[in-house]
Amino acid sequence: MQKYIVGVDIGGTTIKLAIFPVGERATETWEIKTTDREHILEIWKDIADAIRAKFAELGYDMTQLAAVGMDLPGPICDNGYLPWCVNLGMGACYPAKELSDVLGGVPVAACNDANAAALGEVYYGAAKGADNAALFTLGTGVGGGIIVGGRIVAGNRGIGGEVGHFVVNPDETEKCNCGNRGCLEQYCSATGMVRMAKKLLAKGELKSKLYDLPEDAITAKDICDVAKEGDELGLEVIDIYSKYLAIAASHITLTVDPDVIIIGGGVSKAGAILIDKVAEYVAEYTHIAEKKPAIVLAELGNDAGTYGSAALASQLL
Amino acid sequence: MQKYIVGVDIGGTTIKLAIFPVGERATETWEIKTTDREHILEIWKDIADAIRAKFAELGYDMTQLAAVGMDLPGPICDNGYLPWCVNLGMGACYPAKELSDVLGGVPVAACNDANAAALGEVYYGAAKGADNAALFTLGTGVGGGIIVGGRIVAGNRGIGGEVGHFVVNPDETEKCNCGNRGCLEQYCSATGMVRMAKKLLAKGELKSKLYDLPEDAITAKDICDVAKEGDELGLEVIDIYSKYLAIAASHITLTVDPDVIIIGGGVSKAGAILIDKVAEYVAEYTHIAEKKPAIVLAELGNDAGTYGSAALASQLL
Repeated sequence: MQKYIVGVDIGGTTIKLAIFPVGERATETWEIKTTDREHILEIWKDIADAIRAKFAELGYDMTQLAAVGMDLPGPICDNGYLPWCVNLGMGACYPAKELSDVLGGVPVAACNDANAAALGEVYYGAAKGADNAALFTLGTGVGGGIIVGGRIVAGNRGIGGEVGHFVVNPDETEKCNCGNRGCLEQYCSATGMVRMAKKLLAKGELKSKLYDLPEDAITAKDICDVAKEGDELGLEVIDIYSKYLAIAASHITLTVDPDVIIIGGGVSKAGAILIDKVAEYVAEYTHIAEKKPAIVLAELGNDAGTYGSAALASQLL
Repeated sequence: MQKYIVGVDIGGTTIKLAIFPVGERATETWEIKTTDREHILEIWKDIADAIRAKFAELGYDMTQLAAVGMDLPGPICDNGYLPWCVNLGMGACYPAKELSDVLGGVPVAACNDANAAALGEVYYGAAKGADNAALFTLGTGVGGGIIVGGRIVAGNRGIGGEVGHFVVNPDETEKCNCGNRGCLEQYCSATGMVRMAKKLLAKGELKSKLYDLPEDAITAKDICDVAKEGDELGLEVIDIYSKYLAIAASHITLTVDPDVIIIGGGVSKAGAILIDKVAEYVAEYTHIAEKKPAIVLAELGNDAGTYGSAALASQLL
């Protein structure tokens, strides 16, 4: 009888779910709200109920559920422990075990959301077939995932792939959200890019169309857009941004030798103007590598979590 | 019947060999010269002959040879390919396959020498039992090894663990041996430490006993020795050195979450004055990690290669 894997992507407001016939792409996707419950720990029961209801609707028997994978926005250690997850207001628990218990012992695996995205791209997306890979998600923050031998590297503290907090500028004076100074996230998140642009605008040394915008309204997209048109200041921001990202990417390259470095998240929508510059600096900063890792755009977008979670679950079979 | 593993550590002038009863430490070690042959590719035959002769001497039958591991000073890709090995004047070959062939098909595994040292420390030394670990060898150059899930991470290009060429200072103007600028090796090798000291001596802003030495005679040991006595310039060199090493170590930490970071090589003999400072900066640069990786001194010294090679061979069984 056909067996299925369910991938569950738990975000702060929405839980995305998808059903995958084993070895195939998703055939069914749906969502539930993360916040429709009195206590966050009811989340496991809600997810189980959602799976049961969808299986009933589709005429599947629950014995056809081979495994469940899930990801959430927090660190998950190699032993399955989640020390904390600020966005979900939970922590100090073993998510996979909790969900497996309410599902009557079905095998469940859990991981960090950016780690899931990396695995998803390796199984189904831009890095298909890569042995080792690294992913950067460039959004409000900077996340990442490291894949070695086709498996997520999380580590005993779950900090594998926490690339957003690489200190890339020890001389930075402003603080990162994490409390440290000089983290990659301070430059290569969308807000980081805007911060750099505002600093250059304040200096007033470079010409820019951005001077025509209200300063508080400037977005990362605006910066990339004017850069594409040759804006002097916009191009300078892209250059600094790419250097910092390439420092991180090159260090990862000389650590785990990824075949592919995947760039995802909102900022990656800038496309070639960013990717090409990053690739140029990665090539420079990995001088000893005869062959450079491919730098590619992520393909799975908002489905990365469910696909990656399903890929993780498939490793339990 | 007792089975044995042989670990072979191939250096530019000497080949170290050691016999390990499976699951135990070395019971026999010996050396042959690397250079006693007309053509480097006779090396495989020489190693096989050396193993056969030693087995005969000890009264072991060659059927008791379960596996051989070896390391050499070049990159070895995941598929066993050695693209180049400057020190041995060879390249474009599959060392493990070559040796296995002359040994009549005995399983053989090969890896980079610093990678072997890392694995050796995880199996037998300072990082015993670690799942993930990283090693820096701080000598004439800076080498390294990355262990994830108890296995070496080499990658498809064999550049996993090439930590000496992390660009840690993109503003550097002088060139590294690799041709790039700003590599970790330019600061954290023994010669790099001396280079930094000479720069500070030339500036003349800090007091130092090193002014009493002929400039060309200053060694890394001299710098560490005066620093231990509180020398102003010596301590400044240790500080800069530790910052650069910690940048690299922290990036590795946020990539593969090592339980232990092992520091080996000649410079590591400086001991606590260096290790403590590195640990201090690693803690600072891994702000988001609640528990910091342990920073420890390597234990295996010159035996790291044979022990690590034997550990690698044991993974074939």
